[in-house]
Amino acid sequence: MDKIKKMSDIFGIVIHGGAGTILKASMTAEKEAKYREKLAESINTGYEILESGGSSLDAVEKAVNVMEDSPLFNAGKGAVFTHDGKNEQDASLMDGKTLQCGAVAGVRHIKNPISLARLVMEKSEHVLLISDGAEAFAQTQGVTLVDEDYFYTDQRWKQLQLSIKREKQSHTDVTALDHTPDEKHGTVGAVAVDKAGNLAAATSSGGMTNKKFGRVGDSPLIGAGNYANDKTCAVSTTGYGEYFIRLVTAYDVAALMEYRKLSLKEAADLVIYEKLTQLGGSGGLIAIDGWGNITMPFNSEGMYRGFMLSNGKKEIKIFKD
Amino acid sequence: MDKIKKMSDIFGIVIHGGAGTILKASMTAEKEAKYREKLAESINTGYEILESGGSSLDAVEKAVNVMEDSPLFNAGKGAVFTHDGKNEQDASLMDGKTLQCGAVAGVRHIKNPISLARLVMEKSEHVLLISDGAEAFAQTQGVTLVDEDYFYTDQRWKQLQLSIKREKQSHTDVTALDHTPDEKHGTVGAVAVDKAGNLAAATSSGGMTNKKFGRVGDSPLIGAGNYANDKTCAVSTTGYGEYFIRLVTAYDVAALMEYRKLSLKEAADLVIYEKLTQLGGSGGLIAIDGWGNITMPFNSEGMYRGFMLSNGKKEIKIFKD
Repeated sequence: MDKIKKMSDIFGIVIHGGAGTILKASMTAEKEAKYREKLAESINTGYEILESGGSSLDAVEKAVNVMEDSPLFNAGKGAVFTHDGKNEQDASLMDGKTLQCGAVAGVRHIKNPISLARLVMEKSEHVLLISDGAEAFAQTQGVTLVDEDYFYTDQRWKQLQLSIKREKQSHTDVTALDHTPDEKHGTVGAVAVDKAGNLAAATSSGGMTNKKFGRVGDSPLIGAGNYANDKTCAVSTTGYGEYFIRLVTAYDVAALMEYRKLSLKEAADLVIYEKLTQLGGSGGLIAIDGWGNITMPFNSEGMYRGFMLSNGKKEIKIFKD
Repeated sequence: MDKIKKMSDIFGIVIHGGAGTILKASMTAEKEAKYREKLAESINTGYEILESGGSSLDAVEKAVNVMEDSPLFNAGKGAVFTHDGKNEQDASLMDGKTLQCGAVAGVRHIKNPISLARLVMEKSEHVLLISDGAEAFAQTQGVTLVDEDYFYTDQRWKQLQLSIKREKQSHTDVTALDHTPDEKHGTVGAVAVDKAGNLAAATSSGGMTNKKFGRVGDSPLIGAGNYANDKTCAVSTTGYGEYFIRLVTAYDVAALMEYRKLSLKEAADLVIYEKLTQLGGSGGLIAIDGWGNITMPFNSEGMYRGFMLSNGKKEIKIFKD
């Protein structure tokens, strides 16, 4: 890779906690406060690492850990249930300095999938490990597997029962899966630029409620749900993953910047508001570049999101405005 | 997607049977004849479909089936063994007209993984299904699972024993996997343009000899090992998959064409001879565009490859020249 010159003194972090149909009507003040509090905790965790001279890689991992450990988001503790009542999680992480990356898919006993993805990157020669194999690798690295009970939450269990009931009522074929967007899928993610000007991206997902057949979305797929390159940007996506895979969304933002010389915002807007929308997909992304520019476009009703930059700019939002 | 005008009357197919250290010294005339014969059969199978007005999607699937059914290539019947003596296969396929795609990873009882990937594309709302879940889906589609014995070949079993022996001798840590390039990994693939001007790409892989931990390479990952878009090109890659994932190689060829206006050959050369080589990766790719241009660059010692176009051009090659 070409040597990258430090572009700016700005450092900072952007996070998301999933995009989808987040109706204002069903969002109580109390619920909204809980989300805002946890998003702030995630941002602060990452920002403090950056402020003390830590790496963007550490910042995005630890920021994502905060959301993984909360039942509020569809990742880690709050992962949704598959049709069989299991939790199958996916995650990936990328270092924009080296283009090293790591990912796991279909893991069932990992408290923090993003941290396992980092171990895959740093302690194996591979990028993507799946299912039981990924968990066997985790054990060689001293990661304690957690019992499936850890991921049980009443809210997610009720979502599964509701989804199964709806599926039966609609006599949907077992392979024509229901995709009403209401909280069926979600993802958490973080992107950051550190004081050294290095970028990193992390994405972690609990998958899709009532999913069958070992479906894997875009979250663990480098280029689709996650991408980082110091030359351009770091990106984490959330939404209806199949569309992000078909559009190679995360890398496309970087390619539009590098090859067509678009700004971060122009590239991300084109990808979400034109490409994703025209193909019929829904969701959004967060992105940051080496100059400390950030953007958080989405075409769904809401996206849990926020950022904090060293120039004093910060924000936490859920709805369009 | 924008409507694409038919670019040329040329139709045709390009295939590969894997790239790597294919030493002339260890290639007997008899062995080479067998490879050439099977490559020709694969090309002819695809070409006949195109000639009779069939789709590029049918052509690439059936061309890949021929190689999957042969013990010569690391896909289907000839898949290499994992460390545990299993065969875990990956495949993906993409329709350049619609950007629809399908993929499977870590399947153990599927005779033709590329055909299962096509079923995922056409009969599910998903892109990527993994492991047991993918096989459960296969059964809902009437696909008969084959016994693991189907994939047993003496040659591959000996390769595994040799790899395990070498690993023990070198006292390699269980997580620092051996990656000598000699026949450890390989892939088959096909790309085609049909009479209607539509592009398609297919990639199928038996993985990596002695692989552990459910490692998945680039073959089932849209954008990395496989990509097709009527606006630009269809690409199938082969080689050390982790590098193709990090570089999002297959989509990068398309992005360089669309955003930087490079020709197919310029884009593919840049990706293989500059990006892949500079990052330390080895392998190659095959690509075709809507004008009937084709290219087959690789930076390894050899790549099983060939093509046939309706303008009369055809070729089958193994070594650099």
